[in-house]
Amino acid sequence: MKIDINLKDNGYSVFIDELKSLEFKGKVAVVTNSKVGGLYLKEVLNLIKADEIFTVSIPDGEQYKNLATIEKILEELFVSRLERNSTLIALGGGVISDMTGFAASIYERGINFINIPTTLLAQVDASVGGKTGVNNKFGKNLIGTFYQPKAVYCETKFLRSLPAREFSAGLAEALKMAVMFDKEFFDFMQKCDINDNENIKTIIAKCVSLKAGVVSKDEKEAGVRAVLNYGHTFAHVIEMQTKYTKFLHGEAVAVGMNMANHLALKLGLIDKFELESIKNTLVKFGLPINYKIEDEEAFYDAFFLDKKSGNNKIKFILPNKIGNFALKNDIDKDIVLDVLRMFK
Amino acid sequence: MKIDINLKDNGYSVFIDELKSLEFKGKVAVVTNSKVGGLYLKEVLNLIKADEIFTVSIPDGEQYKNLATIEKILEELFVSRLERNSTLIALGGGVISDMTGFAASIYERGINFINIPTTLLAQVDASVGGKTGVNNKFGKNLIGTFYQPKAVYCETKFLRSLPAREFSAGLAEALKMAVMFDKEFFDFMQKCDINDNENIKTIIAKCVSLKAGVVSKDEKEAGVRAVLNYGHTFAHVIEMQTKYTKFLHGEAVAVGMNMANHLALKLGLIDKFELESIKNTLVKFGLPINYKIEDEEAFYDAFFLDKKSGNNKIKFILPNKIGNFALKNDIDKDIVLDVLRMFK
Repeated sequence: MKIDINLKDNGYSVFIDELKSLEFKGKVAVVTNSKVGGLYLKEVLNLIKADEIFTVSIPDGEQYKNLATIEKILEELFVSRLERNSTLIALGGGVISDMTGFAASIYERGINFINIPTTLLAQVDASVGGKTGVNNKFGKNLIGTFYQPKAVYCETKFLRSLPAREFSAGLAEALKMAVMFDKEFFDFMQKCDINDNENIKTIIAKCVSLKAGVVSKDEKEAGVRAVLNYGHTFAHVIEMQTKYTKFLHGEAVAVGMNMANHLALKLGLIDKFELESIKNTLVKFGLPINYKIEDEEAFYDAFFLDKKSGNNKIKFILPNKIGNFALKNDIDKDIVLDVLRMFK
Repeated sequence: MKIDINLKDNGYSVFIDELKSLEFKGKVAVVTNSKVGGLYLKEVLNLIKADEIFTVSIPDGEQYKNLATIEKILEELFVSRLERNSTLIALGGGVISDMTGFAASIYERGINFINIPTTLLAQVDASVGGKTGVNNKFGKNLIGTFYQPKAVYCETKFLRSLPAREFSAGLAEALKMAVMFDKEFFDFMQKCDINDNENIKTIIAKCVSLKAGVVSKDEKEAGVRAVLNYGHTFAHVIEMQTKYTKFLHGEAVAVGMNMANHLALKLGLIDKFELESIKNTLVKFGLPINYKIEDEEAFYDAFFLDKKSGNNKIKFILPNKIGNFALKNDIDKDIVLDVLRMFK
């Protein structure tokens, strides 16, 4: 399966279960971590034909997603003398692909980048959009670039080793796309057997197509791309308050979607039945839907620490019936507090 | 004077002696060093209207042009909570503008960038092209991005405090443009009084226009933009061998141009008269034309350490009569060695 991502420049394709061989002019370096590398590196290396092939292994985990690791990657690439026609391949989850894309974008002002995401989250979400970056002490993904890959290869076989929680986290982002953009896709997700690999392929393909549509309209995230942040405004606060340890990102997004839905219900954008059907689908996917808010005022104030808020107005992205969205930046604080109190 | 830089996206203008006021929506941070800041910061700050204005001072000198300084700049910007609609202003020479542009390009995946170059070199060369970056132990400008400013302001009054050697170094890059692209401009430079400010304005404007033409054809340096490296292939080796201490970059380029000219003479691309007229103009500008090569084989080998060589072929950019260029990547090693031996 092949989905074309049409951008003004630098369009590329996302291939699903099509990774047969990878041929390159020039040198190649594969960036991975020991966990993913241990599982799939040998298999991937066997598919690559290039002048020289290097591997760069970086530590596993969000806590290493920083500029220091980028410097380490770059250093290894300079030691291997990668050139402007060389290619960097990311083999791993979102942390690996975000960092590898960032390194590729700043190595000699940009070399080729190929992404092989190995988590469902990375396949449905990070594989399209061109966002690269690292965290710093002020927050997540605050340093980075927009940089498009030359190609993305999503292999469902690489998902077999994924822990159940991580698989569910990927489904949360997929459901987000369905609720925002496509009622039919939502119905499919609500009903389908997620243990059937064909259904997972369908979900990946649908998410990639939907996101491609959004991104091609709005490559640098000025307008409609903000819609992808449905659930995220709440999720970021939850993640900050739990110091990124209690929930996986997708899990926090699941809770955030449920919170956003309650706000949407209060504003009459969705009805009780729609709220319940989204909630039940989240639960079916093994996702959390609740987070105990200790102090709703503190939670509300924390919205403003989120870089995506901007200009001291909170922009909420809410479902407007299932399959459609609404952007609201004029909601009374009291209404939001009422919703937050429901989670006390 | 205003020169439009037409790019596919992100076109902008270079203003020469037009800096009257700078108005911004959102926050602004001015990045400078203590030397330049001491001379011009107050004057520039007085021209800025913005919600909040911050200044970031970084240490003066090429040795601080590295990722650690970028982190320091970014950290100050995060402390000041710059947002996506904020603007970063570079006030200084090439080191400042390269680093400020790089920081602007990776802060939250890109914020506005305005460049106020305060050296002649930066005004005639770095002000157009969108190259940003830092050095590392493997070489100069190896880490960076292509990122276009929103506007560039070249003020000749900021050149008054420039040391004579630095002024000359700027003229070397200007002469490079003339030799490569414009015989009439070369004649002007050869004859003009460089103590007349109007002539300097003309030189800046001409360089900006010429470079804009090159860059708009070839924004990411695939082809004709390589022509800007006339003299640089030799200069980079000279700079490496002298550890960037003996020559300013423009001075090394002047020597490199003279070396390239001797190679061009040997290949019949220019005649003895043309070689001499370029050499005399370099001398008139107070620029060096000689460098004692200890070991021509070692010098030749060092070409291959230059990232711009690529694919193990040395690409020489040579004048083809004055005002025109030739790209040669098939010159016999012996011919090059003969030329290098002339500098022993």
